[in-house]
Amino acid sequence: MRKHVLGVFMVFVSVLVSAPMASGASGRISKQTEACLECHASVNPGIVGAWEKSRMARVTPRAARSMVVKKRRVSFESVSKGLASVVVGCAECHTLNPEKHQDSFEHNGYQVHVVVTPEDCAICHPVEKGQYSKNLMYNAYGNLKNNPVYHGLVDSAIGIQSFNGMKTTLKKPDEQTYADSCFYCHGTIVKVQGMKTRETDKGKMSFPILSGWPNQGVGRINPDGSMGSCTACHTRHQFSIEMARSPATCSECHKGPDVPAYKVYMVSKHGNIYSGLGKGWNYKAVPWTVGKDFTAPTCATCHVSLVVSEQGEVLAERTHQMSDRLAWRLMGLIYAHPHPRSADTTVIRNKAGLPLPTELTGEPVAKYLIDTKEQDKRTKTMQKVCLGCHSHGWVEGQFARFENTIKTTNEMTLTATKILLSAWQKGAAKGLAQKDSIFNEAIEKMWVEQWLFFANNTRYASAMMGADYGAFANGRWYMSKNIQQMADWLEFKLKEKR
Amino acid sequence: MRKHVLGVFMVFVSVLVSAPMASGASGRISKQTEACLECHASVNPGIVGAWEKSRMARVTPRAARSMVVKKRRVSFESVSKGLASVVVGCAECHTLNPEKHQDSFEHNGYQVHVVVTPEDCAICHPVEKGQYSKNLMYNAYGNLKNNPVYHGLVDSAIGIQSFNGMKTTLKKPDEQTYADSCFYCHGTIVKVQGMKTRETDKGKMSFPILSGWPNQGVGRINPDGSMGSCTACHTRHQFSIEMARSPATCSECHKGPDVPAYKVYMVSKHGNIYSGLGKGWNYKAVPWTVGKDFTAPTCATCHVSLVVSEQGEVLAERTHQMSDRLAWRLMGLIYAHPHPRSADTTVIRNKAGLPLPTELTGEPVAKYLIDTKEQDKRTKTMQKVCLGCHSHGWVEGQFARFENTIKTTNEMTLTATKILLSAWQKGAAKGLAQKDSIFNEAIEKMWVEQWLFFANNTRYASAMMGADYGAFANGRWYMSKNIQQMADWLEFKLKEKR
Amino acid sequence: MRKHVLGVFMVFVSVLVSAPMASGASGRISKQTEACLECHASVNPGIVGAWEKSRMARVTPRAARSMVVKKRRVSFESVSKGLASVVVGCAECHTLNPEKHQDSFEHNGYQVHVVVTPEDCAICHPVEKGQYSKNLMYNAYGNLKNNPVYHGLVDSAIGIQSFNGMKTTLKKPDEQTYADSCFYCHGTIVKVQGMKTRETDKGKMSFPILSGWPNQGVGRINPDGSMGSCTACHTRHQFSIEMARSPATCSECHKGPDVPAYKVYMVSKHGNIYSGLGKGWNYKAVPWTVGKDFTAPTCATCHVSLVVSEQGEVLAERTHQMSDRLAWRLMGLIYAHPHPRSADTTVIRNKAGLPLPTELTGEPVAKYLIDTKEQDKRTKTMQKVCLGCHSHGWVEGQFARFENTIKTTNEMTLTATKILLSAWQKGAAKGLAQKDSIFNEAIEKMWVEQWLFFANNTRYASAMMGADYGAFANGRWYMSKNIQQMADWLEFKLKEKR
Repeated sequence: MRKHVLGVFMVFVSVLVSAPMASGASGRISKQTEACLECHASVNPGIVGAWEKSRMARVTPRAARSMVVKKRRVSFESVSKGLASVVVGCAECHTLNPEKHQDSFEHNGYQVHVVVTPEDCAICHPVEKGQYSKNLMYNAYGNLKNNPVYHGLVDSAIGIQSFNGMKTTLKKPDEQTYADSCFYCHGTIVKVQGMKTRETDKGKMSFPILSGWPNQGVGRINPDGSMGSCTACHTRHQFSIEMARSPATCSECHKGPDVPAYKVYMVSKHGNIYSGLGKGWNYKAVPWTVGKDFTAPTCATCHVSLVVSEQGEVLAERTHQMSDRLAWRLMGLIYAHPHPRSADTTVIRNKAGLPLPTELTGEPVAKYLIDTKEQDKRTKTMQKVCLGCHSHGWVEGQFARFENTIKTTNEMTLTATKILLSAWQKGAAKGLAQKDSIFNEAIEKMWVEQWLFFANNTRYASAMMGADYGAFANGRWYMSKNIQQMADWLEFKLKEKR
Repeated sequence: MRKHVLGVFMVFVSVLVSAPMASGASGRISKQTEACLECHASVNPGIVGAWEKSRMARVTPRAARSMVVKKRRVSFESVSKGLASVVVGCAECHTLNPEKHQDSFEHNGYQVHVVVTPEDCAICHPVEKGQYSKNLMYNAYGNLKNNPVYHGLVDSAIGIQSFNGMKTTLKKPDEQTYADSCFYCHGTIVKVQGMKTRETDKGKMSFPILSGWPNQGVGRINPDGSMGSCTACHTRHQFSIEMARSPATCSECHKGPDVPAYKVYMVSKHGNIYSGLGKGWNYKAVPWTVGKDFTAPTCATCHVSLVVSEQGEVLAERTHQMSDRLAWRLMGLIYAHPHPRSADTTVIRNKAGLPLPTELTGEPVAKYLIDTKEQDKRTKTMQKVCLGCHSHGWVEGQFARFENTIKTTNEMTLTATKILLSAWQKGAAKGLAQKDSIFNEAIEKMWVEQWLFFANNTRYASAMMGADYGAFANGRWYMSKNIQQMADWLEFKLKEKR
Repeated sequence: MRKHVLGVFMVFVSVLVSAPMASGASGRISKQTEACLECHASVNPGIVGAWEKSRMARVTPRAARSMVVKKRRVSFESVSKGLASVVVGCAECHTLNPEKHQDSFEHNGYQVHVVVTPEDCAICHPVEKGQYSKNLMYNAYGNLKNNPVYHGLVDSAIGIQSFNGMKTTLKKPDEQTYADSCFYCHGTIVKVQGMKTRETDKGKMSFPILSGWPNQGVGRINPDGSMGSCTACHTRHQFSIEMARSPATCSECHKGPDVPAYKVYMVSKHGNIYSGLGKGWNYKAVPWTVGKDFTAPTCATCHVSLVVSEQGEVLAERTHQMSDRLAWRLMGLIYAHPHPRSADTTVIRNKAGLPLPTELTGEPVAKYLIDTKEQDKRTKTMQKVCLGCHSHGWVEGQFARFENTIKTTNEMTLTATKILLSAWQKGAAKGLAQKDSIFNEAIEKMWVEQWLFFANNTRYASAMMGADYGAFANGRWYMSKNIQQMADWLEFKLKEKR
């Protein structure tokens, strides 16, 4: 124990010396958390050390709540007395709502759970939790798992293929493979499968065995029945706002050829300024002042943060419903289209009865999508951030170009779709009419790359000024080449069939 | 106004406390700029904040000129009294040369223009502007737009393709698409298309409508008739030398598969040292002292900056004509070749009458290219930088390897060209003889990748020690595979034609 | 000379002010090194400046040895008196063991050599040198050059192809090309080819001409007969531990599609924490304390460093035999398999007589590979690092998923192999039976990408939580697509043959 008291003392001193502090901060650690630390400081020194560096370890909920509204990082109206007056330590989160937590277990006299969930975090951050639950990301598990079309894409992409008798066959992926690929970001289902007894320094102890674990995917299905994972962005156990505002944090799930946001950002002027000058910025200030704390946006600036001017004007309210500022859904689907009304997209059906927001030939399924009025509103919200550094003419030019790119990339996807439809029609490949997967053959995979990779990269490059990502780097060059290769494949295949 | 006076005072204080300062610095802000700031500090807080952090906001041209030559960042002989004695603020740049600026408009009693151009910057930086205008980059718009061969590559890469009756057809790209892809880096033509009246906090105001805007491409055609854009590298409105020396700045246009300089640098030993230790370097010193300010080069060190030793010896003079230190042109063209004599490459014609610096089979068109004497001179200039940290034996070994790689990558490109020529000759594809685009069919696109991507990556890897970029990462592996795939394509196509 | 005395004085002052210092540090510079510096401070200011920033320039071997064991960075029992009491400067390394150094030459009265080797470094770091020599990397030259199968892959990947009479032919690569690609990382043979006289500021001087130079590959064959290159990671001449612990350092050879460790790390949660918060960490501390000095691992943390808890417990002993903590060999070979017993893998023969650790159909060749007991031991060693921040349940879940991925990626490779075997058998391509290269035709190159790129990326993503690298970013998506394309290629080729 002496060790921890000392540790806390040192944290306290460093706060006095260097960090802005809420009045009443440097609260005491609860008895329960002290009990946790007694062992875990030596069992898991890394996370205890990270927590010691955190604001959570220094500031009580009461002190956090006492700040003027703009500077607050909590959004609760009230919490229990027990929580309000101690800093947020191990026990404060890992023992909440035990009755809801399937993963709660008896541990040295405490009822502890492994997986801290948005439901737990919502004790202090209910507004953020509420906003977040309106996101596509919140539904990322179900939107993938319960949509037969998307799920067909998953299975054909990650299933095990065999080759026998000159034919390939596809076996469905196992649970570990799901968790290791698509659901790493989308989120797994975390369930208790039983208990396991383990020899420890303190003798035999029992711990729950979790399936789908570890996972921090944005749409994780938690053992308390809640959805999502705050730690996807607010990395445990330092929970640093500096990290949540770092573009690298978003890159974990937004860097691949299918979601190139980070790569496009890093090559953009914004990203270049961040790379060149960002080491001198203040990533901790709440609210976040443009021109003072930073001179170019990170992902959070445009999509999440409370951004103000030095004169105190609010450029953007904090939101954890990221689609608030987004008129178009650029990625993941065959054609770019207005954002869906419902973040649970499994309810959508197009005319052909498929769970897709557009027809296979691109027409949007209007009744499930936001209308142009809502699109305009969201565009305006985003543009208010842009206008912090750019003139109206600049911003309008930028958005006109972007909307043109949505149109042309959809056209180039339609062309690829027409080649695929010809292939199905002429028997070169098997598709919907043959009740076959629309993702398993080579031509189908080429078609997928047209929209999931190339059209997508081109649109991101246009939205975020990604230079070569609109040209040669997974952009227009590949859309153009892919169409020629699809046409040639069809020609070769038909010839061969004759 | 009080706000700004205070702001300037704070800048002043911080200068006293922390920054090296020219004698006579901390000049006053002009009345005109004060008028700009009065509104724009709240209308565009981001750029005003960036400018406040800048050296421009602290140092008058007169003070900048008063330093010893080696430490100077300006190159003018004289400027008007009005400019000399105030810091460089909004009005100083945005109201220069109004008679030349098609985008100049009446704004609250001032004649203001939107696009600050190299012609404007040249008031204080004439030598840099003069050097820059000898660059290929300065001509980047025309070199692409007015060269029918290159422009054919552009159109086939970014145009819209359709598929009807089992055939693909190509439509020329629209202006927005040009601006959104190739000309993002090469530069657009920025023109005034009319005026637009907008409701503002100060009532109705009129602003010019610009086409080709926004853009910061290196060869931009400006509304004052000038060419280029200093802000491509010297990002507005902080204009930080630290940023111009950051490799990320160059990456905006030099990161894709066609221009992999940044990627190769970052994987090289130089880039690794920068990544591991660069956070402790001094990027602001002028001149820039090797071994003291930094211990490995960034892009600027080898290609642009004034580099000296601690003992005061000049390793490299500052240049904004980057080709000064480059004997070979590695990228963008079918074969690597000596740098062209004229930075406007549209004047070049090979024996076949094509605007290319080599024949289609690789022989350089000597009369348009620098001779070996000039190549040697440029190589020596570059090597003087290398020798700051490496022995003669090291440097000679490095350059011998590099020149060998130019030879072998040209050979591998020739092999791909021969396959393409066979395809044209045997009717498997349509090329020059058929007056068809040489870039629109699959085999032609494979050929393009051989030189524009793979040979190019291999050469950059060799020039800058890019490890796997010379092997598997877009390098030799892909050259080798591409040739086999081109040969197979030809075989399949000919068989099918029978 | 005065200059240097002053420089050293300044170093001394800065040590007093800011750096942790061994008792007895700030030793004097030897007369010999002073003689070197007299010229080289102006001839190579960059490396002299880097060295001046180094710990080597401040701390004598004796002082380094005098620290408590855990804090030591040297491992010798004794060194000569001459070396013990001076700081480690130019002469201390470049004049060691002259009798062994083929590259030793007379230089201003000293017997100097160009290439400092592990044998030289071992004077002070014998334990590290000894550990390192048990690595695959130590044998990286021979493992590639002297294994006919691998070497066939090299030659077909980087050799020069020609196209004549509708056929491609392959010429072996030249020595410069070897050095410029595969052997850049694997290491070249560095040999003295003669002497060259050069005009210098001090008159005519003679220097050795080295072939295979420059090179810092991990398995370099040195002119003193030793193997390896410490400077691959411990970059000259600053030799900063901060740099050795930077992930960028490892990226030089571990970033490409064939060895994606760095890319996977940077997209992982670990890498994100490093990117977002790592600028505040202490990379210089020895030992390295988890939770205090850093809160997420870099490459070195898990694979090399001495890692302790704040309470002093050792989580991992320092090792320079990186395989100590690795049960599986994931990369470079056709199938993932247990690590080989011998780091010299040229001794391995499978049942078919090929120098491969598995059969072509995946079965491991047990007698050359570590057994499950040794695998378990290595896994446990690695897991002890994981447990510093993660629970047993987390770690077990992670490793179970990883081992499943080894199995499934091997299955997907086997499927690709079966298509290739069919192609050979049916005469669509020429393979082992025809005594032809197994890497030169298109289908063979597709097969190589299945394991060398895609299975490999998928496994790394699984091992290090690389998100999309297990899905779309060079991962499962490409394995799946590649199989379809291989099957189509075979179909087209067979049809064409009919």
